[in-house]
Amino acid sequence: MKIGITMGDPKGIGPEVISKALRDPRVKSWADYVVYGEDVAAKEWNAETCGHASISYLEKALQDAIDGKIDAMVTAPISKAHLQKAAYPWPGHTEFLAERTGSQKVVMMMAAPQLKVSLVTIHMPLKEVPKQISEEKIIDTVRITFDSLQQYWRILNPRVAVCALNPHAGEEGLLGDEEIRVIQPALEKLRRQGYQLEGPCVPDAVFHQAYEGEFDAVVCMYHDQGLIPFKMLYFQEGVNVTLGLPIIRTSPDHGTAFDIVGKGVANPSSMIAAIELAVEMAKKRDSLRGVKPFGPRDDEEIE
Amino acid sequence: MKIGITMGDPKGIGPEVISKALRDPRVKSWADYVVYGEDVAAKEWNAETCGHASISYLEKALQDAIDGKIDAMVTAPISKAHLQKAAYPWPGHTEFLAERTGSQKVVMMMAAPQLKVSLVTIHMPLKEVPKQISEEKIIDTVRITFDSLQQYWRILNPRVAVCALNPHAGEEGLLGDEEIRVIQPALEKLRRQGYQLEGPCVPDAVFHQAYEGEFDAVVCMYHDQGLIPFKMLYFQEGVNVTLGLPIIRTSPDHGTAFDIVGKGVANPSSMIAAIELAVEMAKKRDSLRGVKPFGPRDDEEIE
Repeated sequence: MKIGITMGDPKGIGPEVISKALRDPRVKSWADYVVYGEDVAAKEWNAETCGHASISYLEKALQDAIDGKIDAMVTAPISKAHLQKAAYPWPGHTEFLAERTGSQKVVMMMAAPQLKVSLVTIHMPLKEVPKQISEEKIIDTVRITFDSLQQYWRILNPRVAVCALNPHAGEEGLLGDEEIRVIQPALEKLRRQGYQLEGPCVPDAVFHQAYEGEFDAVVCMYHDQGLIPFKMLYFQEGVNVTLGLPIIRTSPDHGTAFDIVGKGVANPSSMIAAIELAVEMAKKRDSLRGVKPFGPRDDEEIE
Repeated sequence: MKIGITMGDPKGIGPEVISKALRDPRVKSWADYVVYGEDVAAKEWNAETCGHASISYLEKALQDAIDGKIDAMVTAPISKAHLQKAAYPWPGHTEFLAERTGSQKVVMMMAAPQLKVSLVTIHMPLKEVPKQISEEKIIDTVRITFDSLQQYWRILNPRVAVCALNPHAGEEGLLGDEEIRVIQPALEKLRRQGYQLEGPCVPDAVFHQAYEGEFDAVVCMYHDQGLIPFKMLYFQEGVNVTLGLPIIRTSPDHGTAFDIVGKGVANPSSMIAAIELAVEMAKKRDSLRGVKPFGPRDDEEIE
């Protein structure tokens, strides 16, 4: 097992958390590692060179992942501002990886052992959310979530809950009609395709139910709906996973944290969790190699 | 110390959870109790008589609370549908109590020992929230929350966080402008009046911070923003408190649960927690009686 780790922005905490993580005996025992980066202390850096370097590490790692030279990639944080300074069009890793791999639809999931949330919409003002959720986006997000739980977590019959948009799941239209107009029709289409799903679920109950073991993942309509309960429980050790790519990519759930760089205080927990999850996902995927295709009706074949 | 408990809807689980709670030795030790209700098994009930009975219990308890015959009231759940059948205009307890006590502005808070959330907007579709939050509502909610923490929890310098509306607190306008247009101006006015506040806070971080002890309460812009993290942690033992009334009112965080009535399985945890909180609030209030007025500048007087 070989895991590639990109160093992220040279001026961020990426180099520090990678170095701390790779000295951890548990981490050493899980896999061999290739770090895509350089000795950052040996150079002067500015915003533009940081942006170029961040992308160059990613390009090498992605090529190696596609070529099968590494089993998964873990990405340390990059800086949106530094990418812009270097005139790159991508706001972050996800968009870069989606474009370079020609992936039509990718899904952001936050993952921890007892709670996984994936998002139908991500970075937008709250007032845009009711306009932006659509049957198509919900269907894509549920499918990718469901298929990934089979492929990378080896859950043969994933129990996926789809969260409502409105409080009390809209209370039969009294507190919003998106459940009736958009979410229920999407779920009906998915069910006709064989997906077993719960929903639209009451938002202030479903995360607790998932945490208690009733669901393997919760598909959320907006960023804070998923991230508020996730980070309530997993503030330091959450992992961000991009689903829907032809490769495995995880990352720690924090940014470049420029304000604490060089102080030696950066916490490697999330980086360690991201490495551990990448290793686990690669193992599960490899154990199923050659068993195709995946889908809600394929339990017997997989078994 | 005498606590009044209203029985709520005669066909709901109110009678059962009250009966279970009052047999609990801890509950017995905290106070004396008056139950406003009747022997529900002795009568036939229909929707309309249930509605009338629910309100009659409440009216008696409220009068006794106003007259000082009880120190606080704890309300078991009533049925919105049954109130409607009996032609009452109030959708729930809060509206009834606000009207009868002439309270201009009341605040719904969910309270547990390590997390308290109060809501600027409550039961409305998510898409209405960005239109409905206003400087005035935020200011009222923060003030009532702040003053109640002093009066009923005896926190002399409450640390109150005000949550942003948008993900990442709007990221300087990139992900929504309500922070800049509405929330920050409200906070500035409050700060000029002497309130010490944190905000607008990043929604997916502030609840964890509050739980870790950084804040005594989080003022939330919408129902699920507060209730999702609250019920993630406190699914059975949360307490709903109405702030801004001239009396103390708490209630368990569940409904009439008609589907489990008569099975003996109703969980009294939330009722017990509601009684405990009412007792604690009454004690704190009484210990401060005669020390007036409350306000952000009055620490020395209270001390």
